[in-house]
Amino acid sequence: MARDWEASELLVGMHETEGVGWITIRRVIACGALEGANHRRAMDWREFALSARQAANLAERLTDEKIELAIRKRERAGIKVVTRLDPEYPPLLKHIEDPPWVLYAVGRLELLLRPAIAVVGTRTATAYGKRMAEELSASCAQSGITVVSGLARGIDTSAHIGALGKPGTTIAVLASPVDHPYPSENRGLYREIVDEGLAISESPLGAPLTKAHFYLRNRIIAGLCQGALIVEAGEGSGALITSTHALNYNRDVYIVPGPITSPRSVGVLKLLNDGAKPVLGANDVLTDYVRTLGEWRRANGQPEEAAASGHSNAGKAEELTPEEEALHEWLAEEGARTIDELLAWSGMPAGQLHAALLGLQMKRLVQLLPGSIYEVI
Amino acid sequence: MARDWEASELLVGMHETEGVGWITIRRVIACGALEGANHRRAMDWREFALSARQAANLAERLTDEKIELAIRKRERAGIKVVTRLDPEYPPLLKHIEDPPWVLYAVGRLELLLRPAIAVVGTRTATAYGKRMAEELSASCAQSGITVVSGLARGIDTSAHIGALGKPGTTIAVLASPVDHPYPSENRGLYREIVDEGLAISESPLGAPLTKAHFYLRNRIIAGLCQGALIVEAGEGSGALITSTHALNYNRDVYIVPGPITSPRSVGVLKLLNDGAKPVLGANDVLTDYVRTLGEWRRANGQPEEAAASGHSNAGKAEELTPEEEALHEWLAEEGARTIDELLAWSGMPAGQLHAALLGLQMKRLVQLLPGSIYEVI
Repeated sequence: MARDWEASELLVGMHETEGVGWITIRRVIACGALEGANHRRAMDWREFALSARQAANLAERLTDEKIELAIRKRERAGIKVVTRLDPEYPPLLKHIEDPPWVLYAVGRLELLLRPAIAVVGTRTATAYGKRMAEELSASCAQSGITVVSGLARGIDTSAHIGALGKPGTTIAVLASPVDHPYPSENRGLYREIVDEGLAISESPLGAPLTKAHFYLRNRIIAGLCQGALIVEAGEGSGALITSTHALNYNRDVYIVPGPITSPRSVGVLKLLNDGAKPVLGANDVLTDYVRTLGEWRRANGQPEEAAASGHSNAGKAEELTPEEEALHEWLAEEGARTIDELLAWSGMPAGQLHAALLGLQMKRLVQLLPGSIYEVI
Repeated sequence: MARDWEASELLVGMHETEGVGWITIRRVIACGALEGANHRRAMDWREFALSARQAANLAERLTDEKIELAIRKRERAGIKVVTRLDPEYPPLLKHIEDPPWVLYAVGRLELLLRPAIAVVGTRTATAYGKRMAEELSASCAQSGITVVSGLARGIDTSAHIGALGKPGTTIAVLASPVDHPYPSENRGLYREIVDEGLAISESPLGAPLTKAHFYLRNRIIAGLCQGALIVEAGEGSGALITSTHALNYNRDVYIVPGPITSPRSVGVLKLLNDGAKPVLGANDVLTDYVRTLGEWRRANGQPEEAAASGHSNAGKAEELTPEEEALHEWLAEEGARTIDELLAWSGMPAGQLHAALLGLQMKRLVQLLPGSIYEVI
């Protein structure tokens, strides 16, 4: 008599069975037939409208011996799995049309639950694009947002590098199996990422890498994140697939404007027509994450951190910057004020004003209302 | 007994009277009191709620002798005047809050009636900004749009240079009197502009140049034009005053995206929040001018010209480009089609498709309906 396995381990087994795809697994789960899957013979599987080959493969794969072998193989390689059935599964990723059933992971699994932003772009990036990817990723990660990218050459590499060493750190989503980083020149970067951050992949260990995997991988990058920042992307760049996914998932899409003499910038500027937001500085992104970051910190018992200023904030009001203090005092007297009124009154450059307002929001002293109106809480 | 002068000459006289401003002239005109203004004594002027000084100055200035002197002075210098009362007055400029009563002009007055675009920006332009200003101005002027700018250093200079020698050519709107171009280093460019295009100014001959003149001049640049393209503008750049005027006048505002590491590009990128349109190529502007250019050409008995392609077009259908022909044939069969359908069907790069569609519109074979839908006329 076969052992009883947890549903998530049976799900991994089905996911790793040759010829069994995402839709077949959905059908089996919808029939409530995941439980006891390893007790089923090939002929039993035919009841679920599976082909003879699928049925035979499943019966062969879901034996105690094969399941134990797979577990040992993962353990030896230090690889964890997170399935769609587990509480560690990224909450936003659940809501795409075709969430991966299984994620293989190396590194800090808890990063899957943090507020995240995708920072992606062309492999053939310009010096400008790489610099912007690194700087903006560093600012996001410094504010506690996890930077998600694809470990590719160019923009992806710069995004990971910018985020490493910062509180939000970084997740690499691989098209290849999670223990075989691609491209090989990024093995050193991969090592840093799994030490400090996380690498994940939908591909079973040992699976061959095909073009389709890059396409499917991009849906995971977009699906994990509240927003996606496309830094540079020429026509046909995979980053545009990520942005299409992000738009379809109703995520915020951000672009870095660049010179129109650069085809890689023109590619992202065209996204403005689809509702992408131009990013003139990190604050244009951070503002959209204030609420999510605040909720995440409260849920995780983390101390509040100033997002843009980088100041630590143990004792709240005493640690306001002079700008924050002046703004807070004025808003407390005046009631709700628009961003234009604040600009006029403060005489501060817009970037500085936004940083101070963001700081006040992070400290839960001021809230942003629709129409760019700020008021004291 | 004093001579009877034309109302427009009396308007010029009032405009040139010290201490008499735009609002006073409006009041006098609203009272129907321009006619016979030169027959009025100082005490008569007091009836219009003018100060003693204004009344005395008007009576002194509106003598036959002074009027004749002013005319001779203009004639000697080759300067024409166009007043708000004349048919040569630019039609769009009439509709701003405070249209200039008098424009002094050197060059081809008829340019004031052509479809026009303002191309302006910072004096301290980057190489990128200058190149874009010149290239986009050249494309606009090549399509028959007159390029309006302020003869300043930097972007303005490049805009004029790009437009010279093209059918639309260029208008320089000066803050200084029209016979004293500023800055002096642009005297050579001014000479080319008045030879081939037009220079205009609201300032009476011999008037001193103050900072306020630059501010007031910018309203004329915006007021003359259906749209304004702001190429580069750092904080505090006068070009941002022109864009504010253009937005207030409900004109199209266009910007050239650039790197966010350049403060002069960030200044224009911020205008995206106010509804400015990003220009990725000349077609993004030309599309908005198809109707205006077509109307102007029909009104002026000019042959149709291909806007983007630069092809001349005497015999219409026979001179379609292969792309235009293919698109026209397909649209004729299919009926109305969206730009996305056209992109998918044609497989053409977006820029090439837009150029072909623009060509078909200029040739009045295809029309653009709301929602980016194209159909054969």
